[in-house]
Amino acid sequence: MTTKCFQEQYPEATRHCYGCGPLNPHGHGLQSFWEGDETVARFDPEPYHTSMPGYVYGGLIASLIDCHGTGSAAAFAHRAEGREMGTEPALRYVTGSLRVDYLKPTPLGGTLVLRGQRKSIRGRVVVVEISLYAEGVECARGEVAAVRIPERWLESLEAPRER
Amino acid sequence: MTTKCFQEQYPEATRHCYGCGPLNPHGHGLQSFWEGDETVARFDPEPYHTSMPGYVYGGLIASLIDCHGTGSAAAFAHRAEGREMGTEPALRYVTGSLRVDYLKPTPLGGTLVLRGQRKSIRGRVVVVEISLYAEGVECARGEVAAVRIPERWLESLEAPRER
Repeated sequence: MTTKCFQEQYPEATRHCYGCGPLNPHGHGLQSFWEGDETVARFDPEPYHTSMPGYVYGGLIASLIDCHGTGSAAAFAHRAEGREMGTEPALRYVTGSLRVDYLKPTPLGGTLVLRGQRKSIRGRVVVVEISLYAEGVECARGEVAAVRIPERWLESLEAPRER
Repeated sequence: MTTKCFQEQYPEATRHCYGCGPLNPHGHGLQSFWEGDETVARFDPEPYHTSMPGYVYGGLIASLIDCHGTGSAAAFAHRAEGREMGTEPALRYVTGSLRVDYLKPTPLGGTLVLRGQRKSIRGRVVVVEISLYAEGVECARGEVAAVRIPERWLESLEAPRER
């Protein structure tokens, strides 16, 4: 099995996300991987990613849950078809809805760990539950309802763009 | 009435948020204002704030809704007490939960407009509904349940920090 992160296996035209796109040099570059039946991503916030001094900005937490959620959705969907990411056809997801419960202030300074679990797959919608941990403590919990990108849109993105 | 944005009227120790803190030189610097009974913020994403090429990254949308939500919560709470932000005691909110429905892809390139409305105020919790528009079209809708920061925590933040 490959040790590439999910995001490096996205179709090339969909690797530009600020949160997790390997082709976006400005962004967070979040990387998601399998760990057994769970998906995991780790992220080190910058010192300036503050909400209150000493705590992680909630928007970053939402962003990480969002990106890890759509990546996990793609991974779960491929496995549901009995194959892994990187095989054709590529299944790629966008967020339909995102919910984040902030359980407690997230301390800034260490590595954040996001763990994703498959909640459901129904038609084109994959629901992923994600817990975010800091210093081993669950600080936020999220749910991402991810919707498979229509093949036609995916193909149009892959065509050269003249913008 | 002042024309200062809500965030410039936050207690000084709580003006460091990456999303909206005037004292965070790295962040988005979102500014929220009154427009009648609504709250409004406008934001110009950077060209690299992409999800798919040509569209705004969903994590940014969640972040803007989050910050405009807590700022709006503070403004609504002050008005519910018959006074405006900037009067004492300052009421300041953090996000308890955030929900974002991505209604359609948000085009990148113009100004995003966020409009907040008060949904409810119960005890220490203010619920704000926010719509995000691009090119005049509602592209995302959010709900922020904002929780008033305990006075004791607010005071501890205002004390000098040695970290």
